[in-house]
Amino acid sequence: MTVTIAAQSRQTSTIATPTAPFVTEHGDVLPHVEIAYETWGQLSSRRDNVVLICHALTGDSHVASHGDGDYEGWWEPLIGPGRPIDTRRFFVVGTNLLGSCYGSTGPCTIDPRTGRRYNLRFPLITVRDMVRAQERLLANLGIHRLHAVLGGSLGGMQVLEWAAMYPERVARIAPIATSGHFSPQGIAYNEVQRRAIMLDPAWNGGDYEPERGPDQGLAVARMLGMITYQSDELMHQRFGRSPEAKYTAWPAFFQRYDVEGYLHYQGDKLVERFDANSYLYLTRAMDSHDLGRGRGDYEDGLRRIKARTLAVGIRSDILFPAYQTREIAEHLTRLGGNARYHEVDSPNGHDAFLKDFDLLAPVVRAFVEER
Amino acid sequence: MTVTIAAQSRQTSTIATPTAPFVTEHGDVLPHVEIAYETWGQLSSRRDNVVLICHALTGDSHVASHGDGDYEGWWEPLIGPGRPIDTRRFFVVGTNLLGSCYGSTGPCTIDPRTGRRYNLRFPLITVRDMVRAQERLLANLGIHRLHAVLGGSLGGMQVLEWAAMYPERVARIAPIATSGHFSPQGIAYNEVQRRAIMLDPAWNGGDYEPERGPDQGLAVARMLGMITYQSDELMHQRFGRSPEAKYTAWPAFFQRYDVEGYLHYQGDKLVERFDANSYLYLTRAMDSHDLGRGRGDYEDGLRRIKARTLAVGIRSDILFPAYQTREIAEHLTRLGGNARYHEVDSPNGHDAFLKDFDLLAPVVRAFVEER
Repeated sequence: MTVTIAAQSRQTSTIATPTAPFVTEHGDVLPHVEIAYETWGQLSSRRDNVVLICHALTGDSHVASHGDGDYEGWWEPLIGPGRPIDTRRFFVVGTNLLGSCYGSTGPCTIDPRTGRRYNLRFPLITVRDMVRAQERLLANLGIHRLHAVLGGSLGGMQVLEWAAMYPERVARIAPIATSGHFSPQGIAYNEVQRRAIMLDPAWNGGDYEPERGPDQGLAVARMLGMITYQSDELMHQRFGRSPEAKYTAWPAFFQRYDVEGYLHYQGDKLVERFDANSYLYLTRAMDSHDLGRGRGDYEDGLRRIKARTLAVGIRSDILFPAYQTREIAEHLTRLGGNARYHEVDSPNGHDAFLKDFDLLAPVVRAFVEER
Repeated sequence: MTVTIAAQSRQTSTIATPTAPFVTEHGDVLPHVEIAYETWGQLSSRRDNVVLICHALTGDSHVASHGDGDYEGWWEPLIGPGRPIDTRRFFVVGTNLLGSCYGSTGPCTIDPRTGRRYNLRFPLITVRDMVRAQERLLANLGIHRLHAVLGGSLGGMQVLEWAAMYPERVARIAPIATSGHFSPQGIAYNEVQRRAIMLDPAWNGGDYEPERGPDQGLAVARMLGMITYQSDELMHQRFGRSPEAKYTAWPAFFQRYDVEGYLHYQGDKLVERFDANSYLYLTRAMDSHDLGRGRGDYEDGLRRIKARTLAVGIRSDILFPAYQTREIAEHLTRLGGNARYHEVDSPNGHDAFLKDFDLLAPVVRAFVEER
C-alpha cells in the first residue's frame, strides 16, 4: 500500500490561473489564487482518511505543530499521534482562508493585472468562496472525499457549507460555536469593528503600505472582538473590578481597570500579526453566511446536508449563543438527518473552542472515530 | 397650606461658587458648578412629596413635558397628572447630571479660572459626585427628604448611591436595569466606546471646537452602545438578515444589512445632540460605580441602604443582565433590608426601561404610592 502524501509544513498550492480563474459567488474574477496549507499524517492509498480543519477569523493553517521544535498550533492538543484526531490514522489538512493574510490570496496580495496590492479592490467573498477554494486545493492533492470536517466560529460556517455544497463528499461534520445563518447582532458587532478600522486615518480607504496600516483602528476592533469571545462570567472571574495590573502601553483616561489593560494588550498583539483589510473582508464574509442564500429558504439549505452532524455549542457563548448551534442539530433531526448536539459547559465564552481542550478532546475523538 | 415651589421647565441652580467650591470625591476642585433641573407638580408644605428621577448616559432633565405644546420627555408616559407618578400628588424633580452637556457643568463648560472650556481638564467624576451635586441642588430648593428616587442604568447607579450616601433622607428607591458594582464586561464595552471617540482625529486630545467634534468617533461609540442596549432576540425580530432598507448616509463596505443602517442612523442622531468629552466622563463615572468603594467591602456598601427597595431587572438585558439587578434585592434582603425584585419580561434589552411603559407603569405606580 503506497502512501500518497505525507505530512508537510506550510506549502502553497495554485488553485486558479489566468486561463482558469477563480470566479467568486458574486461573479468577480480572481486571475490567480494561491491557498496555503499544512498537513499532518499520511494520506491512505484509498484516500479515505482525510480530516479537514477550518480556522476562524484570525487563524491560519497551523492547526498543530509538525514535531519537536516546531511551534504549537491553535488546536495543538487535539491533533497528533495518539491525540483525539490521531495522525497515525488520519491525514489532517489545515488551510489558510481565501481573503486571509497567512499565505493565501487576499486583499494584501498583488493583483497581477495592476502590479499593485488589491486592498479594497479585492472582490467581496463569501464563506462559499472560501470552501470552494479549499475544494480546489484538495483536488490538487488528489482528495475528493472527506472523512470529517471540523471548525469553530467562521470555521464552523465553512464546515456547514462543505456539507451543503458537496453533500456526497463529506461523511461527517462538526460545526462548533456557530450558526446556520449569522445573527443580526453578530453583523452589528462586525460592523462596529469595521468602522473602528475605517476611523483610523492610517486606513486611508484601504490603501496603506504594509507596516503602516491602521494599527489603532485594528486594535480597537480586536478589543471589541475579544469582548464577544469571552463572557460576563469569565470576566468576573478573571478581572473583576481590579485596577490595571500590567499593560500600560496605552494612554489612560484616568486610572485603568485590569480588563482594559487586557483588551489593550490583545489589541496590540493582533496588530503585529494581522492585516486590517483582511479583517474587513473576513468579517463581511461572516455577515453573508446563510445556508439558505440562493437555495430557497433556510430549511432548503439545511436539507442539502447529508453528513452525520455533531453540532457543538458553548454554554456561555455570547457571539453564537448556544441555542443557535443547538438549532442546527435539532432542525437537521426534524428534517430526518443524522444529527446530534453537545454543549460544552464552560465559562470561557466563544473562545472555549480554542481553550477547553479537556472538554473537547473526548467529544472530538468519539466523533472522528465513530463508524 | 402654602405651595412652596410649583412646576417649572428648565432652570439652572448654582450649587458651588469660588468661595464654596465643589470638591470631587477624588479631591479636585470645581470653583463654579451649575445644575440644570426641571420640576413637575407642587412641593407640599411639609416638603414630603418629592420624587427624584435620575437619567442615564445621554439623558437630560426633561423627564416629561410641561403641558400642551411642550415636547415629550424620556419617561413621558410615567409622569403627569393621573399618570403612575401622579403630579397632582407628587413633586417630581429631574436634573441634568454633573459632567453632562444639557445645562449642567461639564467638560464643555468654560473653566472660570482659564476662560477656556475644560475639555479633558475637567476632573474625573464619580456617580457619588453626581448624587452630591443633586443633593446640593435639592438643598437650594429647600428639599431635604425624598419620598422616592427612581432611575435606570447609570440613573439606577445614582439611585443606589442616594440611598447609601443619605440613608436617613430617602424613603424608597427603585434602581432599574443596573447593578451594585459595574461589571468588567460593562467597563470593557465602555472602554471600546471611548477609544472609538479618541481614534477620530477630530477629537484632538479633547480640544475641539463645538460643532467640530469627533462626530465619526462618537457615532461609532453610540453604535456599540446601541448593540448593548438591545438584545439578540430583539434584533432577530426587528432586523433579521434583511438588506439595508432606508438609511444610506454612510459609505458601505459592500451591500449593507438593515441592522447596520439602523446603527449608523442612531450614531449620527446622537452626534447632533451630545458632547464627545461628556461621553468619556460619564462612561468613566459608570466604570467607577461600586457601592463598596471606600466603605469596607461591597456588603458594607449595601448595608448602608435603609430605603425600601424595589429592584427592577429586564429579562433580555445584556449590559446589566437581570441577575445583577436581582442580586441587589436578594442581598439587601439577606442583610435584613426591605427589598424586593421585579423582572420586566421584555425582549427589548436594556432599553426596555425607556420603552416598555405598559410593563413599567403598574410597577412604578404601586411603588410610589405604597405606604
